[in-house]
Amino acid sequence: MRPHELTLAAASRAVGARELSPVELLDSVLTRLEEVEPRLNAYVTVTADRARAAARQAERDIAAGTLRGPLHGMPMALKDMVDVAGLPTSGSSRVRAGHRADADSAVAARLTGAGAVLVGKTHTHEFAYGLITPQTANVRDAGRIAGGSSGGSAVAVAAGTAAFALGTDTGGSIRVPAALNGVVGLKPTYDLVPRDGVVPLSWSLDHVGPLTRTVEDAALVLPALTGGEPSAVDGDVAGLRVGVPRNYYFDHVDPEVETVVRRAIERLESLGARLVEVEIPMTRYVQAVQWGLMVPEATAYHERTLRTAPELYAADVRVLLEAGELLSAGDHLRARRARTLLRREWLRMLEQVDVIAAPAVPMTAVPAGQETVTWPDGTTESVSDAYVRLSAPANITGVPALTVPVGTDRAGLPIGLQLLGRPLAESLLLRAGRACERPLTLAGS
Amino acid sequence: MRPHELTLAAASRAVGARELSPVELLDSVLTRLEEVEPRLNAYVTVTADRARAAARQAERDIAAGTLRGPLHGMPMALKDMVDVAGLPTSGSSRVRAGHRADADSAVAARLTGAGAVLVGKTHTHEFAYGLITPQTANVRDAGRIAGGSSGGSAVAVAAGTAAFALGTDTGGSIRVPAALNGVVGLKPTYDLVPRDGVVPLSWSLDHVGPLTRTVEDAALVLPALTGGEPSAVDGDVAGLRVGVPRNYYFDHVDPEVETVVRRAIERLESLGARLVEVEIPMTRYVQAVQWGLMVPEATAYHERTLRTAPELYAADVRVLLEAGELLSAGDHLRARRARTLLRREWLRMLEQVDVIAAPAVPMTAVPAGQETVTWPDGTTESVSDAYVRLSAPANITGVPALTVPVGTDRAGLPIGLQLLGRPLAESLLLRAGRACERPLTLAGS
Repeated sequence: MRPHELTLAAASRAVGARELSPVELLDSVLTRLEEVEPRLNAYVTVTADRARAAARQAERDIAAGTLRGPLHGMPMALKDMVDVAGLPTSGSSRVRAGHRADADSAVAARLTGAGAVLVGKTHTHEFAYGLITPQTANVRDAGRIAGGSSGGSAVAVAAGTAAFALGTDTGGSIRVPAALNGVVGLKPTYDLVPRDGVVPLSWSLDHVGPLTRTVEDAALVLPALTGGEPSAVDGDVAGLRVGVPRNYYFDHVDPEVETVVRRAIERLESLGARLVEVEIPMTRYVQAVQWGLMVPEATAYHERTLRTAPELYAADVRVLLEAGELLSAGDHLRARRARTLLRREWLRMLEQVDVIAAPAVPMTAVPAGQETVTWPDGTTESVSDAYVRLSAPANITGVPALTVPVGTDRAGLPIGLQLLGRPLAESLLLRAGRACERPLTLAGS
Repeated sequence: MRPHELTLAAASRAVGARELSPVELLDSVLTRLEEVEPRLNAYVTVTADRARAAARQAERDIAAGTLRGPLHGMPMALKDMVDVAGLPTSGSSRVRAGHRADADSAVAARLTGAGAVLVGKTHTHEFAYGLITPQTANVRDAGRIAGGSSGGSAVAVAAGTAAFALGTDTGGSIRVPAALNGVVGLKPTYDLVPRDGVVPLSWSLDHVGPLTRTVEDAALVLPALTGGEPSAVDGDVAGLRVGVPRNYYFDHVDPEVETVVRRAIERLESLGARLVEVEIPMTRYVQAVQWGLMVPEATAYHERTLRTAPELYAADVRVLLEAGELLSAGDHLRARRARTLLRREWLRMLEQVDVIAAPAVPMTAVPAGQETVTWPDGTTESVSDAYVRLSAPANITGVPALTVPVGTDRAGLPIGLQLLGRPLAESLLLRAGRACERPLTLAGS
């Protein structure tokens, strides 16, 4: 087994036991990168020299007996919305040409402080404002979308060109690409992970979180991001009350996705979890609230550039940003007030269960270029709306949400199970996820 | 001296010592009301029978030895934005014709629980959306405005038709009428006093607070509203750092007002306070932020009625509500973001001083019907803008602000000193206010 094939946890153990050097690990990752990156295009920039220097330093420190922790010497990828001092933060946009961050973002500083080694910055749907990541190919089928907006991070982890990665999630941008490429994606509780130095899309919905190959790996990255204590993720779910939505999360979901997700839920039950049917509240408000909050907040941030250089934005993003200028304060306030009620109702529902189990996305990765999806009942929705639909509630309410790979469809495309919980209940989500995940082997060759 | 002439504190001591019965006190207040109310029109409704029953009950309880506290048996007036179960909450508006509150507001429940006796509901500028209170006459000069929006409450207290009253303050609506009628008005720290059951004007700027004849009286009412402990207001200001604004608060202020206010500040210095010059931050944003927050929030609340029965609103209020429908989400978000910065800068400034001393309003009560004011440098502003100008910063930042009467102009019209402090520093404001207040005798006859 080549070092880049190791999970973060396995590589971390090997490095800690001095059976593997951070330099060997990085070399393996960079070689893997040469093999697959031309086809996948997950990275905006690969910072190989800087990474080699950091890996050598880590090697020396560890040899000298100062192991900083589980991330010491681990190769990481950061979505190109996350500032790293001295590097451009492109947001995969021409708008940022010539940009250079003068300081590390809070998360970059914490991860570097924990000894992680930056492999490079990964592609995002321009400024994270979309669910496709057009530059990047799905790791299992180059003809299909990687999903987004953290598509590059998901693909890098799934392909073995990073041991872990960071993404941002405003309407599903960590969970959607994680699910579509078969990796684990965690959107933590709102405000648990600092957003300082991360380019905002919509500040009241934005979250920063990890993408990894396994739940165990996610549990290693989270404490480094929060500065909190690591939590046990033994996967013991005996007695856990698992909420199974009676409505919304299984509506307009591909039958293969539903089957695989329900099978994962049965695994939880067979391990001693108690399944409880739950009614998801106020579902008809979700889409309007998500857009009523996101659109004007996104426009507020891009206002100036939108006036001075609109032509630099991709057409799809520019349209959304310009739409934001037309929204009334009343519509925005209606969305804010509805969010308050939605949050209250969700917290009430979450008193009955420990976690909620549902599909991460209603369908696996669609072919690049597909714009709409039509459901058996004849209703049609845009691909973006479909991918956002099951993610948005956790952004609006701020509750933590984890997606774990639990199988594939007949075409071999990954299917994700989404676990949602009460604010700050990340450890419960990780425990439940650990119990039913079905990690996939590396792909992309 | 007739009982209604007693301050709240004096009446409270007399009742506690059983030298005065709540019934005698109420009778005196109701007699006073018959004398002056026809001229002043401070009240929307006088609940005399209900008050007499409550006073008799208080008399019995106290005779039986169960004195509930300093407010037991004290006659109070509530601005007609505050729900009292079984009574209409008119907001002084035709829109509320036939309204009846099914439950007490949080503050009404707390004050009733403390044994206070409701005399009636007082006039407000329609739905608190203005600074005039057209129905009510200034207590010192019937040809002049009472100020608003809590004009009825200020006049009732100044005239002796209530021992204390509640008002609401979104842009100065407690402090402006308090200053113009020569009473004490406290806008507490944002969210310190619950707004439940109080008709909102602009939920992110709304505050509920007391109007009283003296600072000592305000200190008796505040704990009943917050549920907190009473704080000593001995008026000792030795060593207190009093900030005197170098900019903004003394710009475009009537010379007589400035003279009287500066004399009050000198009194504080002569009592051992240390005067510190302070620079008020971001003043050019105040007006835009106040309006950018208030206008759409007010419209959001009135939306439905505005569609179904616009003709029921007074013309000035309807125009403001309709303007709210035209404001863009971007303008509102700019105001929200500017508020965040304003608050941060104010808190930084408030690290240098314990309280800030300034005029409450730039000019005394103007004649009814006057719409603009012209300053010596030739600039003209609307009377409303002038009265809001020095009040709005405390609404935007949420810091506590107290106005106390410190003198009168040549025409005998009251002048208020405004004291502002750090969040939750009410007791400091009360101490400083106690030290320099110049309570006026009852007026309105």
